[in-house]
Amino acid sequence: MSKNCLVAQSGGPTPVINASLQGVIESALENKEIENIYGARFGISGLMKDKIFDLTNEDKKEIKLLQHTPGSILGSCRYKLGEIEDDITDYEKIFNVLEKYNIKYFYYIGGNDSMDTVEKLNRYANYNNKDLVVMGIPKTVDNDLLVTDHSPGFGSAAKYIATSVMEATLDSRVYQRKNVHLVEVMGRHAGWLAAASALAGETGLNTPDLIYFPEITFSTDKFVRDLKKKAEEKDNIIVVVSEGIKDSDGNYIYASESSKHDQFGHKQMGGAAKALVPFIKEYVYDRVKVIEFNILQRAANHVASKTDADEAYQCGKKAVEFSVQGNASGKAVVIKRTSNSPYQSTIELADVDLIANKEKKVPRDWINEAGNHVTEEALQYLRPLIKGEMERKTEKGLPRYSDLEAAVTVRPKKDI
Amino acid sequence: MSKNCLVAQSGGPTPVINASLQGVIESALENKEIENIYGARFGISGLMKDKIFDLTNEDKKEIKLLQHTPGSILGSCRYKLGEIEDDITDYEKIFNVLEKYNIKYFYYIGGNDSMDTVEKLNRYANYNNKDLVVMGIPKTVDNDLLVTDHSPGFGSAAKYIATSVMEATLDSRVYQRKNVHLVEVMGRHAGWLAAASALAGETGLNTPDLIYFPEITFSTDKFVRDLKKKAEEKDNIIVVVSEGIKDSDGNYIYASESSKHDQFGHKQMGGAAKALVPFIKEYVYDRVKVIEFNILQRAANHVASKTDADEAYQCGKKAVEFSVQGNASGKAVVIKRTSNSPYQSTIELADVDLIANKEKKVPRDWINEAGNHVTEEALQYLRPLIKGEMERKTEKGLPRYSDLEAAVTVRPKKDI
Repeated sequence: MSKNCLVAQSGGPTPVINASLQGVIESALENKEIENIYGARFGISGLMKDKIFDLTNEDKKEIKLLQHTPGSILGSCRYKLGEIEDDITDYEKIFNVLEKYNIKYFYYIGGNDSMDTVEKLNRYANYNNKDLVVMGIPKTVDNDLLVTDHSPGFGSAAKYIATSVMEATLDSRVYQRKNVHLVEVMGRHAGWLAAASALAGETGLNTPDLIYFPEITFSTDKFVRDLKKKAEEKDNIIVVVSEGIKDSDGNYIYASESSKHDQFGHKQMGGAAKALVPFIKEYVYDRVKVIEFNILQRAANHVASKTDADEAYQCGKKAVEFSVQGNASGKAVVIKRTSNSPYQSTIELADVDLIANKEKKVPRDWINEAGNHVTEEALQYLRPLIKGEMERKTEKGLPRYSDLEAAVTVRPKKDI
Repeated sequence: MSKNCLVAQSGGPTPVINASLQGVIESALENKEIENIYGARFGISGLMKDKIFDLTNEDKKEIKLLQHTPGSILGSCRYKLGEIEDDITDYEKIFNVLEKYNIKYFYYIGGNDSMDTVEKLNRYANYNNKDLVVMGIPKTVDNDLLVTDHSPGFGSAAKYIATSVMEATLDSRVYQRKNVHLVEVMGRHAGWLAAASALAGETGLNTPDLIYFPEITFSTDKFVRDLKKKAEEKDNIIVVVSEGIKDSDGNYIYASESSKHDQFGHKQMGGAAKALVPFIKEYVYDRVKVIEFNILQRAANHVASKTDADEAYQCGKKAVEFSVQGNASGKAVVIKRTSNSPYQSTIELADVDLIANKEKKVPRDWINEAGNHVTEEALQYLRPLIKGEMERKTEKGLPRYSDLEAAVTVRPKKDI
């Protein structure tokens, strides 16, 4: 009987999450152990509802275009499985579908919450002697996954942020007037994307001036002091703040009236930068502009890092290779940096429970003593990750995306 | 005695305003009629204060990099000259400086307010028999200049907007849930950039769903009706609004408490999209995301249109050529579209008073009958302007800008 594989995506998108999907599909197509390749729509959530479709015979040119296509093309979810001990309803649904399609290999592309899903499915399979190899393929712009040197998706988001901070910096210097530009970047608990903005200063622009991290307790008094000091030196100040900066009581510095929680208990972020505007206007400069990179930082495939896209692809490819070799269930592929200059990396396996539900913060000694910029060590870590330009696939002056997007958007309604 | 030229920039930056500067410098360097090339810092405002520096001997490689460098590298201003009849103080200051540096040719790169400056300086020169050729070189992301088929800078901002709307669209479809993404683009009185967002639908994504223009009176009732109709067809709705949408009383639809005016009497814009969020939450979908492209749309050189950059360059180059041929003072270079398929254009001369202080709106019949999207005629006009990819000049994975930026930022303090 044929052995089939299934792939799904989970959590927030990254600019290169579909490159990992491409790696899985292309590798599975070549692999003799695998017959059919299925995709699940909307992650584990769609899987439970049998939203499965066949990817085996997709046009190979369109599969190749996945590396140029942002946005979790299979669809995603933020669905957390309950404890196996409490309720097996979800698990039974999932394994019914897996068995219906004769799935032997299941690859889940996601972050630390998704690794929790992989861990639980693996445990359930073991308890019940199911013949399933379930593996995690890491992705997150937040770069907060443990074990892996860095997460696929981070390098491209970092490149977008550094590039846009450079552009905003030149824009801020145009008029002869004093101003502060406050740039807000993603990062609930980890300041990796905030740190990456420091790369904008690598080619001579002397920007950003100040960076604030969720890892460092935020004080508006100190913030105003930092800014006043900068204001003695220059008229145009660029400040990067992580959305997740918190005060000494552990409360988020954001103005949003909303304090809704998503299903994993994360607060809905937004507005850290806007909340700081009154302090700047009162004590520093009257002109303040807030720039929120918003979802663009996780969607901007058009300025993706080639290093990142290549690694995202390799993670997908290697997951398939490891899966058929045995002893891979309950594991995730991770990136190991083997050399920094020239930059080299390999893909290895790691137990998924070392990653699930955990968060990797920016080390304290990679942030300067004043807590408002990065150190050289951080820059050494960050530099290689944004390097390399993707060949552009364009049509009519715009990105040419894989038509798999149209296919999966329409098909589940028609075929399933 | 040698004849020198002076170039300055004015108004808001565009992604390719420095390509026009490059065109002026390279053309002037080749021209036998012109000896030294000077730049004025911060437009007419810096010119009056003698903030002049010599560009003649800049490194030619760095001059070439200007086409890859956003942000009005000479610095800009929003300074409006008074009427000659009322007060000649400013004019005397300006002509003192022009005479000090023996300026015969003055090129002012700017929008409709800057064309007013060109017109007045030309008139003052005529009244007083000054030997000055003063010319306008158009630029504006808003595309609201008359006479010229389109304005240099618009195509690149349009390309950034269309690309980012595509990326945001894919991001919006990731989760299985109903949502509205509200994208706010620049455009005080003219909806050209809003119209350009329609290009995002050219390659199969079926986006944006609705577009709102300053040219069409905005009604929140109709807006809600439009959205409800879309919500019958799809879960993920993308709406583009121009910052300048106004209600039937002519008031701007924006939440900002600030209603400050700049020196030209323009209201400070911002917040049109945010002001609409409560209506969507109450009557359509609970999930709404606001994406403001902010200054990024006028600074994103990294995704500039080659067609636009080439034309911006040609405008600078031709201005110099026309200026030495005679009968060019008080005129601006303008773009004439000679063919749409294949797209071809030429650069011609036009009287600056046909452009100064005027605004070109989107024609009513280029907006659909419902007033919430564009027509095919608008698309035919827009399509060629975003075409072509710039060769990327990168260093360390980031844009490599001209070092003229560093030079002009530092030099006026040291040398002048």
